[in-house]
Amino acid sequence: MKTRIAILGYGNLGKGVEAAIAQNDDLELVAVFTRRDPSTLKLHTPGVPVYPAEQAIRMKDAVDVLLLCGGSATDLPVQTPAYAAHFNVVDSFDTHKKIPEHFAAADAAARAAGKISLISCGWDPGLFSLARVYANAVLPQGKDETFWGRGVSQGHSDAIRRIEGVLDARQYTVPIEAAVEAVRRGEQPVLTARDKHLRECWVVAAEGADKARIEREIKTMPYYFDEYDTTVHFISAEELARDHAGLPHGGSVLRGGVTGFDREHRQSIEFRLKLDSNPEFTGSVLAACARAVHRMNREGMTGCKTILDIPPAYLSAIPDEELRAHFL
Amino acid sequence: MKTRIAILGYGNLGKGVEAAIAQNDDLELVAVFTRRDPSTLKLHTPGVPVYPAEQAIRMKDAVDVLLLCGGSATDLPVQTPAYAAHFNVVDSFDTHKKIPEHFAAADAAARAAGKISLISCGWDPGLFSLARVYANAVLPQGKDETFWGRGVSQGHSDAIRRIEGVLDARQYTVPIEAAVEAVRRGEQPVLTARDKHLRECWVVAAEGADKARIEREIKTMPYYFDEYDTTVHFISAEELARDHAGLPHGGSVLRGGVTGFDREHRQSIEFRLKLDSNPEFTGSVLAACARAVHRMNREGMTGCKTILDIPPAYLSAIPDEELRAHFL
Repeated sequence: MKTRIAILGYGNLGKGVEAAIAQNDDLELVAVFTRRDPSTLKLHTPGVPVYPAEQAIRMKDAVDVLLLCGGSATDLPVQTPAYAAHFNVVDSFDTHKKIPEHFAAADAAARAAGKISLISCGWDPGLFSLARVYANAVLPQGKDETFWGRGVSQGHSDAIRRIEGVLDARQYTVPIEAAVEAVRRGEQPVLTARDKHLRECWVVAAEGADKARIEREIKTMPYYFDEYDTTVHFISAEELARDHAGLPHGGSVLRGGVTGFDREHRQSIEFRLKLDSNPEFTGSVLAACARAVHRMNREGMTGCKTILDIPPAYLSAIPDEELRAHFL
Repeated sequence: MKTRIAILGYGNLGKGVEAAIAQNDDLELVAVFTRRDPSTLKLHTPGVPVYPAEQAIRMKDAVDVLLLCGGSATDLPVQTPAYAAHFNVVDSFDTHKKIPEHFAAADAAARAAGKISLISCGWDPGLFSLARVYANAVLPQGKDETFWGRGVSQGHSDAIRRIEGVLDARQYTVPIEAAVEAVRRGEQPVLTARDKHLRECWVVAAEGADKARIEREIKTMPYYFDEYDTTVHFISAEELARDHAGLPHGGSVLRGGVTGFDREHRQSIEFRLKLDSNPEFTGSVLAACARAVHRMNREGMTGCKTILDIPPAYLSAIPDEELRAHFL
């Protein structure tokens, strides 16, 4: 029996989910829902229908898990509780400080419906959260550091695009290797934002725009750039398309701790990702989570969950006996 | 309410567990059981009684989880099913290919008793198993590699000690960095045992022993050494005690995979440990597992489990709401 999945929102993440489903024999894409005109979407998977988002609820009995592929700013706070009342859902809500309220809204809707809502899946939050929780459980006396990149930050790229005279931009978050290495060696250094990451900006300016002003506005932008060492490079639209079309990302969660009655032994744990495509990797995590949600709901679980609540074996298509025999 | 833990077997691992319990406010060491004369043991934790192993079962109502700290060769295959009939137990059984039969024996006993037996905890099997399962679930098309070290292998050290004329020995398993780096870059190289690890031996020979013969016997020992490049260094007992007293270890689980409809994007996941003390780290994992076992059994679960069955949040002393707010 396959897990029948529908996707709501066919942007980069929705496409990444579609590609991930195609790699898993036990998962099946049964529909895509969109707020655009359905006739304008061209799916990669043959034979899968595209419907207007308003029609999604009609299909609730034909869908085991609905993957919500919208954005965290405005889409998911509304969509997740709304669809949780009808479907098992999975989202990648990533506004870290609003997770408790998002959880509460999804939990109420999912409990009432007898469904599961799995929120904040992906890699951060998601796999990085797992790394933090495992490392803290094993090494209660220690210190965490998370480094991101080298990778494209959509939020920072968007912030640059809002500056007058900017036509397009790509911002890379770059971890500072010396800091990563010091943490890796277990030195537990005290690190400011500036010590941990550089920000590298590739900007296409409008003809005649004041580049010195644009550069100054980027470098002094509060929160986004002012606490970092930032480099700004002006390039043509063609160069941006040629050299910066991808969406790579990654990073490391590190925890250095001590054990022993005299805290005499240093122990360190690192979880690292290196990703050519952020949306395809995130989509792959969501697809595995859909499998787990389907199994958990079949077993009678309901309400809002996070990846911290999922027994690891439930994410896998491989039967438990085989996992014990070959992966343990 | 604290989780009341007893330890059976007070060797390096038992001591590591004791040190870990002392780092966790919600865990309490209530007894140590030993097959030696209890009066010969000196615990670090004040006020904890030491009893002969035969008396353990008398204390079953005063112990929430019994941590079995014996060896995988002869102790655990007998002890785990025997104590599973009376206690929630946790072991670090690490004979990978015998896990299915160990699981079956523990499962029958634990189910009959209404208890949980959690087997094969530690870091490999244990945290490395988690890394393999998560990485395979997210990247179904890819390839795993596990590297161990630089660290002391007890099995290989013991094998050298059994050679005639050897008084003592320490063997380090050393990962070959060029191989690790090639896997990290996502090249998916085909690697033999020799390509992945070196074996470095520090040997104390008896006076007048034939060192050339000892070196030859080490390097040609089937399975343990013959498939590897091995170096042998003869040193004095004093040098061994001074320079090789620790039990460091570690390693990396790497998975390189591809995503996208044309498998056009490389993605890589790495989980890495760097440990000053292998037994203290393993003991720390077991202590966290004891917490999870206690919670799972209180919720009504029974039978044999592995770390692949544990919701990650159950390993943590931090309440679920706080994990969601600060760790997700």
